[in-house]
Amino acid sequence: MGDDTGVRIEIPLFAGFDEVDAIAPFEVLANAARAVDELNVELVGADGPGEIVASHGARLQCERGLGDAPDLVLVPGGGWMRGGGARDAYAAGRLPGRLRELAAGGTIMASVCTGAMLLAAAGVTDRRPATTHRAALDDLARHGALVDREARVVDDGDLVTCGGITSGLDLALHVVAREWGPELAADIARLMEHEVVGPIRVSAS
Amino acid sequence: MGDDTGVRIEIPLFAGFDEVDAIAPFEVLANAARAVDELNVELVGADGPGEIVASHGARLQCERGLGDAPDLVLVPGGGWMRGGGARDAYAAGRLPGRLRELAAGGTIMASVCTGAMLLAAAGVTDRRPATTHRAALDDLARHGALVDREARVVDDGDLVTCGGITSGLDLALHVVAREWGPELAADIARLMEHEVVGPIRVSAS
Repeated sequence: MGDDTGVRIEIPLFAGFDEVDAIAPFEVLANAARAVDELNVELVGADGPGEIVASHGARLQCERGLGDAPDLVLVPGGGWMRGGGARDAYAAGRLPGRLRELAAGGTIMASVCTGAMLLAAAGVTDRRPATTHRAALDDLARHGALVDREARVVDDGDLVTCGGITSGLDLALHVVAREWGPELAADIARLMEHEVVGPIRVSAS
Repeated sequence: MGDDTGVRIEIPLFAGFDEVDAIAPFEVLANAARAVDELNVELVGADGPGEIVASHGARLQCERGLGDAPDLVLVPGGGWMRGGGARDAYAAGRLPGRLRELAAGGTIMASVCTGAMLLAAAGVTDRRPATTHRAALDDLARHGALVDREARVVDDGDLVTCGGITSGLDLALHVVAREWGPELAADIARLMEHEVVGPIRVSAS
């Protein structure tokens, strides 16, 4: 992953995103960036810079919007069952449209929780193994994904998805292990006092 | 906990606080507030309203500072070993001083990770069972706390502490179970796709 200019990971935030969906993997990946020179991880505004109010009321300030060619985009969910959040971003279509372009350009796509529905709206999960929050598994299947109902993290190469909310910790640690080695992932898990929860399903390549 | 005006929980943020220390229990408790009418949960500025930059660079906007008499204050940690964050808040002394006053006034004190060191500086953990991030257990013991090196969450009534970073999920779910019942805590754990991690040590009262 990445090139001479380093590796860039962006986590796009939208109104009503679920705080832990975004912040927990952000912290895992930002801890990796403290150990990996060329790695840069940033919370960005899905619709450009500015303040974004999350699902439970936290107010986050983003200096930048989504870039032109991040190496990996991690999409949080939130609000799919209650309304607002990912449900609104799905209906508005702007973020899915942008994700479709980035995927076509070679950006690795990751999602936490119902962020998978935004990847589905972008056509990224069609006929591919994927998962999402338990409450949205049927919705994801209706979009044509090959839904894995047992796995907590599903790694299909340039598409990595996981279950609800706290499973983002396990997805991010899996990405760290895959890209920068299991020792760094173990160090970060120890630092964050987290024991990885599975199952983690990796597609045969 | 609480009175006719309801129950108020405040999570004071300071420069360099650890994002997950604060945001993970915030989301657990905010989910409880969706089910418990009189419960209000807020991220507040330790030194008043304004923007606070967290340990990994997330920028949070707080509308209010710590109130006069919240029912429970949950103190995050961050930066204890690297410097900055809780280490600076400890040295500056303002937040510990405020916590000392609140504890004297009857506010229940909770901490995640090295937030326990700010409670220690406030004198709140003296000769009481408590815990903190693994890397700070010796520091906490030197302050006179009865450090529990095995437990993930230590409940000593009006003092509730836990281990590092992700253990804040388990602390917050324990507080929800204790105050509003295990069924609500189980509902929130299921929603957040988190299995509670222990041991949880409750002092004999």
